[in-house]
Amino acid sequence: SSPYRIVAISGEGIGPEVVEACLTILQEVARLEAFTLEVQYALLGAIAWEKMGSYLPEVTIELCDRADGIVFGAVTQGGLLELRKHFDFFCNLRPIRSFNSLLHKSSLKPEKVKQLDILIVRELVSGIYFGPSGRASDEKGIYGYHTMRYYDEEIRRIACTALQQAEKRRGLLTVAHKENALPHLPWTRLVQEEAAKFPSVIIEPMLVDNLAMQMVLNPQRFDVILAGNLFGDILSDLGGALVGSIGLLGSASINSNGFGLYEAIHGTAPDIAGKGIANPLGTLAAGVLMLEQWGEKAAARRIKQAQERVLAKGYRTADLFPQKEEILVNTETLVNLLLE
Amino acid sequence: SSPYRIVAISGEGIGPEVVEACLTILQEVARLEAFTLEVQYALLGAIAWEKMGSYLPEVTIELCDRADGIVFGAVTQGGLLELRKHFDFFCNLRPIRSFNSLLHKSSLKPEKVKQLDILIVRELVSGIYFGPSGRASDEKGIYGYHTMRYYDEEIRRIACTALQQAEKRRGLLTVAHKENALPHLPWTRLVQEEAAKFPSVIIEPMLVDNLAMQMVLNPQRFDVILAGNLFGDILSDLGGALVGSIGLLGSASINSNGFGLYEAIHGTAPDIAGKGIANPLGTLAAGVLMLEQWGEKAAARRIKQAQERVLAKGYRTADLFPQKEEILVNTETLVNLLLE
Ligand SMILES: CC(C)[C@H](C(=O)O)[C@@H](O)C(=O)O
Ligand SMILES: CC(C)[C@H](C(=O)O)[C@@H](O)C(=O)O
Repeated sequence: SSPYRIVAISGEGIGPEVVEACLTILQEVARLEAFTLEVQYALLGAIAWEKMGSYLPEVTIELCDRADGIVFGAVTQGGLLELRKHFDFFCNLRPIRSFNSLLHKSSLKPEKVKQLDILIVRELVSGIYFGPSGRASDEKGIYGYHTMRYYDEEIRRIACTALQQAEKRRGLLTVAHKENALPHLPWTRLVQEEAAKFPSVIIEPMLVDNLAMQMVLNPQRFDVILAGNLFGDILSDLGGALVGSIGLLGSASINSNGFGLYEAIHGTAPDIAGKGIANPLGTLAAGVLMLEQWGEKAAARRIKQAQERVLAKGYRTADLFPQKEEILVNTETLVNLLLE
Repeated sequence: SSPYRIVAISGEGIGPEVVEACLTILQEVARLEAFTLEVQYALLGAIAWEKMGSYLPEVTIELCDRADGIVFGAVTQGGLLELRKHFDFFCNLRPIRSFNSLLHKSSLKPEKVKQLDILIVRELVSGIYFGPSGRASDEKGIYGYHTMRYYDEEIRRIACTALQQAEKRRGLLTVAHKENALPHLPWTRLVQEEAAKFPSVIIEPMLVDNLAMQMVLNPQRFDVILAGNLFGDILSDLGGALVGSIGLLGSASINSNGFGLYEAIHGTAPDIAGKGIANPLGTLAAGVLMLEQWGEKAAARRIKQAQERVLAKGYRTADLFPQKEEILVNTETLVNLLLE
């Protein structure tokens, strides 16, 4: 069978370290499951600007055009929003799952986060990030503005993806909205209209302020959460906080062809970059999402099992603040343990 | 001395019950501290619409015009945003404080919320709630939009209030922004410029997604959090979740004359309305903010002490889920206990 082509965009900070760790493990499961991965590197963001005078160089786009998936590290600014838009990665999937052996790392009581399993479906190529914006002035003074704009069709499109996901899971779809202050963005009505095709899914509209609160008060009640670009950004970081570390979570950004970009939800972490101590598990979780998207379920399962085994044995990178009876390891050791 | 004039806007759901409870206690501390309160009732929201054909009747505005403070219950929709705008209540203060005797009610571990003391300063009369908005269509289809617009002066005005508060407190001002996606709203720069007049305050800009996360991971690190209208809405409900119940928190919405509206941060809670079991402590916390705003510090202190005494003895309304060794009480009993 022909090899899968991966474009690796390492970015800055701990990006390169965690991308390498992830690729090493992906190559190993490919070998075990008898498929082949071809990796090419591309630049984006500040590094691309320095070396090529563009945050999102044409050659990066061309490489991605021919790829089956993008493994992304982290960037501080520039290029990422454009890349999402260029490939129309409208659907951002952010699973929030707790690990049994890490329950005590959460700020929340263990019984509140045990078996937590939320999927946040975030719209990623529209809303306030992409609406008309600028700086201007009138008789009242200088102002800045960004427009939260959604075409009804954009809401319907992401609603369908979220409904499909909810149908495959526990059948509850919570819809983040703010219709008491933003009545012209009728998420509830549009999602309910699409939901006619998914009779087994229960739709639960929830004001975004209340939703943020309920995620802390009672996180286990949620199944799938659908949100626009900005609300989804806030709620998914909040979701990361529930499980005690954003170092563990990955996300997939997918377009209508099933082509996607896979990245950890954490940032560049410049304070620990280059020290070999970064946690690769977030990028690896993203790699698992890529394998699942490709239908390589056995390979995905291998990685998840390795991860659980290593965590259950007590191995932790520094970001997880190892306590007594846990063992501090660096990135390389963790990768080796995962490969065992 | 001339009496303080209060306009009570009870609203719907549990609004009337909690407003009455609050007023009873305010009258009692007024008697003890030898000042007088005159209360007049006004309508707003759905009830005003039914009885007078307007969500915000002219007579309500006139009553408020002559008042020293508005004690507000809760409404489901209509009138509140207009009232905020009419009186230019640009500054919304939401203190998030944990009660020692209620630490175990939080989803978070007690050591994470012990002595929590955050002040959220939320801009309340601009931003996306009030920018140009509507429904429209073009060749791509029908869309809805709301504009997050801030005049630089609006940001500077609320920044000054937040800086004053931080100066009086522990001197750390965290500024919620999203400049990596919304660069035309330069909260960081504008706040830093105003901060020149407050050399003792440390300014800490933080991306709103990260801020939501940090509020869960490490809430005790925060002192004052400054946010625009929408971010402030989400972050303050999240703050309420940290202390285990939004039933306990109040907010003050103040204009540049020091005139304000005082309300609990919870909603109408229709499921328990009219049963006499609602928790009045949120509205009472708002009442305390009103007394403090008036400079009636002794009266404010009396209420806070009564509240701590009653909670320490284990009395709880149903929303606080009394466990063994705690005593379930209804609204009336709680008020009587507070008056003792
Ligand atoms: C009722 C609603 C418009 C309001 C807001 O978002 O401002 C409420 O959530 C609040 O926080 O006071
Ligand atoms: C870097 C930033 C623009 C981005 C976003 O807000 O989308 C990030 O926070 C994310 O969630 O991927």
